[in-house]
Amino acid sequence: MAGRLAELKIDALLVTSPANVRYLSGYTGSNGILLLLPGETHFFTDPRYAIVSKSIPGKSHVVKGPLTAGVAKVIKRKRLRKIGFESAWTHYEDYDKLKEALPLGASLAPVGRIVEERRMLKSAEEISLIRSSVRINSEAFARVLKRLRPGVTERDVAAEIDFQQKMQGAEKSSFDTIVAAGARSALPHAHPSAHRIGANELVLIDMGAFLDGYASDMTRVVHMGSPPKKIRNMYRAVLEAQLAGIAAVRAGTTAGNVDAATRQVLKQHNLHREFVHSTGHGLGLEIHEMPRVGKKDKTRLEEGMAMTIEPGVYVEGLAGIRIEDTVLVTRNGCEVLTPTSKDFIQV
Amino acid sequence: MAGRLAELKIDALLVTSPANVRYLSGYTGSNGILLLLPGETHFFTDPRYAIVSKSIPGKSHVVKGPLTAGVAKVIKRKRLRKIGFESAWTHYEDYDKLKEALPLGASLAPVGRIVEERRMLKSAEEISLIRSSVRINSEAFARVLKRLRPGVTERDVAAEIDFQQKMQGAEKSSFDTIVAAGARSALPHAHPSAHRIGANELVLIDMGAFLDGYASDMTRVVHMGSPPKKIRNMYRAVLEAQLAGIAAVRAGTTAGNVDAATRQVLKQHNLHREFVHSTGHGLGLEIHEMPRVGKKDKTRLEEGMAMTIEPGVYVEGLAGIRIEDTVLVTRNGCEVLTPTSKDFIQV
Repeated sequence: MAGRLAELKIDALLVTSPANVRYLSGYTGSNGILLLLPGETHFFTDPRYAIVSKSIPGKSHVVKGPLTAGVAKVIKRKRLRKIGFESAWTHYEDYDKLKEALPLGASLAPVGRIVEERRMLKSAEEISLIRSSVRINSEAFARVLKRLRPGVTERDVAAEIDFQQKMQGAEKSSFDTIVAAGARSALPHAHPSAHRIGANELVLIDMGAFLDGYASDMTRVVHMGSPPKKIRNMYRAVLEAQLAGIAAVRAGTTAGNVDAATRQVLKQHNLHREFVHSTGHGLGLEIHEMPRVGKKDKTRLEEGMAMTIEPGVYVEGLAGIRIEDTVLVTRNGCEVLTPTSKDFIQV
Repeated sequence: MAGRLAELKIDALLVTSPANVRYLSGYTGSNGILLLLPGETHFFTDPRYAIVSKSIPGKSHVVKGPLTAGVAKVIKRKRLRKIGFESAWTHYEDYDKLKEALPLGASLAPVGRIVEERRMLKSAEEISLIRSSVRINSEAFARVLKRLRPGVTERDVAAEIDFQQKMQGAEKSSFDTIVAAGARSALPHAHPSAHRIGANELVLIDMGAFLDGYASDMTRVVHMGSPPKKIRNMYRAVLEAQLAGIAAVRAGTTAGNVDAATRQVLKQHNLHREFVHSTGHGLGLEIHEMPRVGKKDKTRLEEGMAMTIEPGVYVEGLAGIRIEDTVLVTRNGCEVLTPTSKDFIQV
């Protein structure tokens, strides 16, 4: 990151986002920050991680109390003057405390998502990890699908999904698993409830895993018995939108163009007002990363970016339908990593 | 909160902490904030939660784009001048954006953890929820313990714990379940690994659940076969410290006194340098709440506070032992909510 520090005219960058800290240092604990200087890295953590800290590259500081006190000491000792901080991740209170602890002549400069920007472009190793995460997530879905029947609760299904993900090697789900049946599927972020899935209900399942730190994300809709025509038409429209989104992904286009592609299809079906979120999002060490794949996102897609494509339509009181894959941007288009079929599943 | 607003000389309080928003409004989604005025509450969320927002008390605003834009509009319309914000929870970037969006004459004032302070005192309903959360967590432990054997991996045990918690009705674990065997138990926050539990190994299990939003937390140590004398002595010392901590809890004392009680016992055993964290922490809607129950915490304990008591000793390369219960402060002492035995478990 030395080049970026020079461009931004800062002497050091304080990295406080846990995902950014992990990306740059490999540290996976809950309380660690980095101070990056040109050619020099300082890692700060508390005594709980004293043993772990020995395996972090660069210089490690085990600090009792607030880590910012340790950071201020290094700033003083190294006579740093302008310290960039991640303004999207630093709480005002921590900013204020650190500012108070600085020596005279030193100042803090808010810096944008520069580590996140770099994280958009996945390395070969990261792509391999995302690929595995997607694969085991689909495997977990397949195992749960076999046993999905009317009469089980949304919660039972979600618990089984989470268990199967872990049986496939996942650390945990990459977000709270969504299992929403019937009209509850129209709530785009419903929590699994004690509701028993009915004999003719639709079930929306949105699930993802973290495997070796890397996220996957998939949504499928399953119907108990044969779906009525209205639901079938909705499904067809969303699938058409999702395929249009996938077709729009390629290096050189913008994330906004991909969003426009799904939105246009839903407009043709007069369902665009029921599409109340973005088309997708990047993913990696976090479940939501750059790019946003939303209406005004001007990010240029590049080979090696990983993201979801997930248009959805939500009709209050009736149903919500969303279809989501994880895809990888390639030079001429994209590779759909998710192996799970997108036929409208009936059980 | 109207009284507190007057005391702090602010016209409104912007609440951005998800747990504080839930506490005050019942909203459980991922993107919602509150603006509290004397006798008036405004809730802001994005279109994904349009349906949900109808059931939030007070006035709801469904905002496209950053929620702070909606907040600024209300500030303008209501001619508010001094707006308090939760400085511990507000990212610098959001603070800066909101500041830029304010009308002339309006300003932002950092405010401490005033909602968290109120949250320390649990209502009868909250206590009942914590009690249930603790009970089902212990039940999940009992079910997993029955099947714990050498040869299974730490990850298998953790996956089974998470599954059993959910089978007991939990939404999810209240933190990443810790299952650490052998010398790995000396890492106070180890992630479950593919390591197979050995025939003579110790296993540290730290687990908690969220049930209806409320957290539980418990740590137990299990030994495969008969523990060697050194480990047995360590266990006895930690248990003695834990019981001393529990004995020190009562309304009127300080959290720091409780911490001192456990630390003193470990000092008698010459193990205080291996006790590298605080004695405990409050819990409720979050797994870590006030009070901190650490060295210098001057918080006066009051009837109705819920917290953990969890001294631990970590010897690098050998073993870590921690014993943790969730307790409730009563007028004359405390009630240990955790029903699980603290005898040194051998399987």
